[in-house]
Amino acid sequence: MSGAPAVVLLSGGLDSATVLALATEQGYACHALSFDYGQRHDAELVAAKRVASTVGAASHRVMRIDIGAFGGSALTDAAIAVPDDGGDGIPVTYVPARNTVFLSCALGLAETLKARELFIGVNAVDYSGYPDCRPAFIAAFEALANLATRAGVEGHPFHINAPLIAMTKAQIIETGMRLGVDYSITTSCYRADGEGRACGHCDACRFRKQGFAAAGIADPTRYVGANL
Amino acid sequence: MSGAPAVVLLSGGLDSATVLALATEQGYACHALSFDYGQRHDAELVAAKRVASTVGAASHRVMRIDIGAFGGSALTDAAIAVPDDGGDGIPVTYVPARNTVFLSCALGLAETLKARELFIGVNAVDYSGYPDCRPAFIAAFEALANLATRAGVEGHPFHINAPLIAMTKAQIIETGMRLGVDYSITTSCYRADGEGRACGHCDACRFRKQGFAAAGIADPTRYVGANL
Repeated sequence: MSGAPAVVLLSGGLDSATVLALATEQGYACHALSFDYGQRHDAELVAAKRVASTVGAASHRVMRIDIGAFGGSALTDAAIAVPDDGGDGIPVTYVPARNTVFLSCALGLAETLKARELFIGVNAVDYSGYPDCRPAFIAAFEALANLATRAGVEGHPFHINAPLIAMTKAQIIETGMRLGVDYSITTSCYRADGEGRACGHCDACRFRKQGFAAAGIADPTRYVGANL
Repeated sequence: MSGAPAVVLLSGGLDSATVLALATEQGYACHALSFDYGQRHDAELVAAKRVASTVGAASHRVMRIDIGAFGGSALTDAAIAVPDDGGDGIPVTYVPARNTVFLSCALGLAETLKARELFIGVNAVDYSGYPDCRPAFIAAFEALANLATRAGVEGHPFHINAPLIAMTKAQIIETGMRLGVDYSITTSCYRADGEGRACGHCDACRFRKQGFAAAGIADPTRYVGANL
């Protein structure tokens, strides 16, 4: 933890746990940032805390931010059901402007900590089609960050690192296994129960299951019920 | 309030009150959004509520977001004094990534409300030199917004309106007076007391005072003490 500081967005899911391990391997002192945003799967935050501790983050903050109050997403609005299959196009689990809000907060923390590197576990291969997971979004945010901040203007540019963006879910899992990530403590499911057990059927569960199968690695996920 | 919806960032200061009046004049149903972010001048929020009500906003939300916990600014960290004169360069009253965070939240709300227009009262003439008040920042955020969101991707682009950006403070005040804005209920001061009375000496007070003087309009600001 003696390296340069970095801010790592940590949801408690499989992807962000892998990113935290990658950034740590690269020598950064990783300051993990999670959000309590009214998500229905708040087992995520329990997982995030465990992951930050296990991987050895330099710090872990949980920031409360009430974007859930806006509604408009199955992940934050109990009136909208999470479907088994998100289908074509952008699914109802999309949370308006979520990654923009999360990266903006990470940017503020990074500037305060004098960190130049931000890490986010977005992925544009085995993913739900969210617009704020694509390379063009990441590039646009980096450009914005360097116009928006004192550090950017004064010649200390920020870099938005999205090391998983072009990986398949299987490649992400293989990377994490190589780095010793314990995926049994991560929670990806959109409908996880109070103990973090996964439904096995939502988009997030399906991509995750398929990833373990494609990587030929036994799936350590704790599922609700018996034989999923 | 029967027009198209718009989201207007409302701090409770002179600039954002003027923007709310302008957007209302243009026929938008204005949804005002304020932030409780740990700012030391929380008299702002009292002023924002009054302004939203007086100008006739369609709704007014106050969103709690703990960017103040990051520190790094005289506006959110009691350990850093607010100076009388911010001096050259970016002053200590700069809050890391503040307008990026605020616009990101406004974007999420706008997408949920199906609003395409966002309004922000930034100004790059009589201002404190903050990087996130410049035209290049606004343009970069608009580009980001249309990559980040379902609405942007599906061909319903957002516009970030910054109608004050090239005005002098005097021109802003003249515009507001024409629209009937009651500036006596706005609070701009970085060190306002519990009743919203201004110090008369900080950057925000100086720009505001000079604006009324240049516009030849009696300054309705309530100042702490007697003869400021």
